[in-house]
Amino acid sequence: MSSPTTSLCHATPDDILLRGRSLPREILGRASFSELFYFQLTGRDPTAGETAVLDACLIALMEHGLTPSAVSARLTFGSAPEAMQGAVAAGLLGVGSVFVGASEACAGLLVRIAGAADGAAEARALVGALRSRGERVPGFGHPLHRSEDPRAARLLAIARDHGVAAAHTAALELLARAVAAEAGRVVVMNATGAVAAVLLDAGLPAEILRGIALVARCAGLIAHIREEQLSPAMPALWHGAEAAVPYAGPADRREP
Amino acid sequence: MSSPTTSLCHATPDDILLRGRSLPREILGRASFSELFYFQLTGRDPTAGETAVLDACLIALMEHGLTPSAVSARLTFGSAPEAMQGAVAAGLLGVGSVFVGASEACAGLLVRIAGAADGAAEARALVGALRSRGERVPGFGHPLHRSEDPRAARLLAIARDHGVAAAHTAALELLARAVAAEAGRVVVMNATGAVAAVLLDAGLPAEILRGIALVARCAGLIAHIREEQLSPAMPALWHGAEAAVPYAGPADRREP
Amino acid sequence: MSSPTTSLCHATPDDILLRGRSLPREILGRASFSELFYFQLTGRDPTAGETAVLDACLIALMEHGLTPSAVSARLTFGSAPEAMQGAVAAGLLGVGSVFVGASEACAGLLVRIAGAADGAAEARALVGALRSRGERVPGFGHPLHRSEDPRAARLLAIARDHGVAAAHTAALELLARAVAAEAGRVVVMNATGAVAAVLLDAGLPAEILRGIALVARCAGLIAHIREEQLSPAMPALWHGAEAAVPYAGPADRREP
Amino acid sequence: MSSPTTSLCHATPDDILLRGRSLPREILGRASFSELFYFQLTGRDPTAGETAVLDACLIALMEHGLTPSAVSARLTFGSAPEAMQGAVAAGLLGVGSVFVGASEACAGLLVRIAGAADGAAEARALVGALRSRGERVPGFGHPLHRSEDPRAARLLAIARDHGVAAAHTAALELLARAVAAEAGRVVVMNATGAVAAVLLDAGLPAEILRGIALVARCAGLIAHIREEQLSPAMPALWHGAEAAVPYAGPADRREP
Repeated sequence: MSSPTTSLCHATPDDILLRGRSLPREILGRASFSELFYFQLTGRDPTAGETAVLDACLIALMEHGLTPSAVSARLTFGSAPEAMQGAVAAGLLGVGSVFVGASEACAGLLVRIAGAADGAAEARALVGALRSRGERVPGFGHPLHRSEDPRAARLLAIARDHGVAAAHTAALELLARAVAAEAGRVVVMNATGAVAAVLLDAGLPAEILRGIALVARCAGLIAHIREEQLSPAMPALWHGAEAAVPYAGPADRREP
Repeated sequence: MSSPTTSLCHATPDDILLRGRSLPREILGRASFSELFYFQLTGRDPTAGETAVLDACLIALMEHGLTPSAVSARLTFGSAPEAMQGAVAAGLLGVGSVFVGASEACAGLLVRIAGAADGAAEARALVGALRSRGERVPGFGHPLHRSEDPRAARLLAIARDHGVAAAHTAALELLARAVAAEAGRVVVMNATGAVAAVLLDAGLPAEILRGIALVARCAGLIAHIREEQLSPAMPALWHGAEAAVPYAGPADRREP
Repeated sequence: MSSPTTSLCHATPDDILLRGRSLPREILGRASFSELFYFQLTGRDPTAGETAVLDACLIALMEHGLTPSAVSARLTFGSAPEAMQGAVAAGLLGVGSVFVGASEACAGLLVRIAGAADGAAEARALVGALRSRGERVPGFGHPLHRSEDPRAARLLAIARDHGVAAAHTAALELLARAVAAEAGRVVVMNATGAVAAVLLDAGLPAEILRGIALVARCAGLIAHIREEQLSPAMPALWHGAEAAVPYAGPADRREP
Repeated sequence: MSSPTTSLCHATPDDILLRGRSLPREILGRASFSELFYFQLTGRDPTAGETAVLDACLIALMEHGLTPSAVSARLTFGSAPEAMQGAVAAGLLGVGSVFVGASEACAGLLVRIAGAADGAAEARALVGALRSRGERVPGFGHPLHRSEDPRAARLLAIARDHGVAAAHTAALELLARAVAAEAGRVVVMNATGAVAAVLLDAGLPAEILRGIALVARCAGLIAHIREEQLSPAMPALWHGAEAAVPYAGPADRREP
């Protein structure tokens, strides 16, 4: 095995190179955050459309209100305000299988459908297999948005308008038809499915999808911490949580 | 500067040495968890009394109910149950200035009082200085336990009964008298002050006090996660927190 | 669904109850750290033998030298020494599938073998299935300890000597025979397999095995941080790592 | 005290509002990542110049090579590849006093100089006070870039070119003169000082400066994790670190 190397960054006395490009002379003032993020992730510059799609996904994932992730970050910030990084880390640790798992699983289906000779048949087979195991199809259904997830529709439109929509967006459409055929009714396509489809079509690998969500959530959590700095909600969050789960005495929950 | 080394561990094909001692032949089956923890921390074996004091402090700090730390751990576990380490990390990130800061600050006072020629005068001077800045004396006062903090009294008794109580426990007594004289009434000595005094008298350095709390809380958090595995409280904790902090519309909290 | 409750802790003005038991009057000074940890985890007191086994496993898992986990904790401590909890969290986040996954996977096999009508046949079937998929049997093999893992042998002896060894230890023995039969030679049983077997026989659930490792590692990491406080190795660790992975220029590792 | 509220997000069956603005209809496809991040942080839209400055700072802070933060993230990813969020959290936990402390401390000086009646005199007084305590002036000096930090000059030029440079950038210039007068030579102004000055002039509060760094580093860490997915450097990083800190035997580093 050859010894490993890195291509991401190199500093000299006069310059800082990111993948061979001068940070002060060629990047600063020329690229947006999302453009450099894309370049560092993939080694190539995004097109304007790919940047628009990445920006849109980062925006769609940034803020979802007082999620478990945001509550953990605020509770931690109130406990250790001298270490903001700990509060952000606590919040990001909630970005796991429950939060982004569906998007990752949907991406897996889309890659298979897009790569199949007969995508529609592959979509039907995948949906059939999930249903036969009693599992839901990732990317479909929403507890609040019943007829349409407003983010999903917008994300797909952005990808289409910028000419980025391609094989994986088409695969999502095939998947939606297979889901509707199986269920006997239209099932709302949610944001997790749309995010997966448009990021894949924007050239970002499925394996890094969780990383996109982490960057977006990181920004969202900083806004929560700023709100906490200006008017602390932490005691109310804590006592609201605590009051919801009373003490039950010793007899309870003994190991069988 | 000589190059740095480590004394903690060395593995050979036949043995594993911890600070020069054979793990399988000299430690396993002979030491308790707290004894090895003390040995690795300090490089010497604790006396029976020192072990009793360390065990007592670990126990006193292990479990405080649905603290912000425990709530964060449970919220994170419910969000990423496949990564228990993330839930524990999220909980431990709340062990900061608010949770153990008072204990660390009290330890600082005790070290100064114990090292002074006239400890009583030093205690009075320290209390006077804190009060003149409008600050509370760390280690004293409790919102719930008004007459006596039941853990504090018990920890001091354990240290006394095992012959461990020494200069720092005496310093805590001098500090208590100075606090009472300043306040014109007895102020309850809380567990954070007692933990600081008895750990210092047990030979553990003030700088590592937070580490003792982290180990204790780590064990406590695992019990919370086990309870969460058996009967999940996470949704109730989340919704209880969320409901306590309603949406206020856009006008609010704009930067001045 | 009935609303969730907790049994772990309840504070009153005069007392603190852990699973219904008074912390100051019934626990402090009477229980060791491991005894209370076991009680909080399971809702019952451990036997002396079960405590000995839990202590032994916590000790066996505490310290493995400059593992990735310890290096991360030290690098983080050197970057943010004001937030020790962050360094510990960073270290614990490395306790994942690579570090404890084998122990958890071995526990799964042991539960199945112990629950089978014909344990030996079940062991052979499980080993055969793993080998047919080209996978290693978790709990067996070690890169350094070729003839015997000194910790594994000692852990099993402790469980036997205290009368704790039972169905899962026997299952491990059946698994070892099946492994040897399949390989045509004895394959060393490593500590991860022994830890799984003796903790299960000590009455601790397989689902919480990672939590035991987290508590042990937490204590180990505090000793690393203490060593870092006394003589910082962080710059050497960092530069040693950095020098091992040189910059390769831009062409490398572009997305295909 | 009135009960706390949040302004950040509210979901209805048909819409998602961020600070009162519709995410699908008014934000997606119209704002860049940095624009929404600024809006959520402060409650107002940034000017084009403020966005350019925020983008430039996020870019300047994103990637610094194999820093302790990046090494921790890669070590953790290699230990628990199933939990990318843990690796990112481990990396972000190194964003503490050592990494961003100087920038935060410099921001504090700039706020005082910008608010003083005679800024030049205030700058001289602050530098004099630091030097009399033997402390370095935060924002000045660099181990590698001796004549000019290429990022600092570029950040200040961007702020100037976009008309964002104002009181805090001027304060940095006054501070630079005071440093040079005190030292008897020009001392290089580094990126931490420039970042502080231009973010303050872009209307972002000093208290949230660490949060800007955390978002930038989060993106940088995802690129490191992507590189790790494509060609793992983790074993080399680990062994390079480990080899730099040999075992020294038991006698060493015993507590005094």
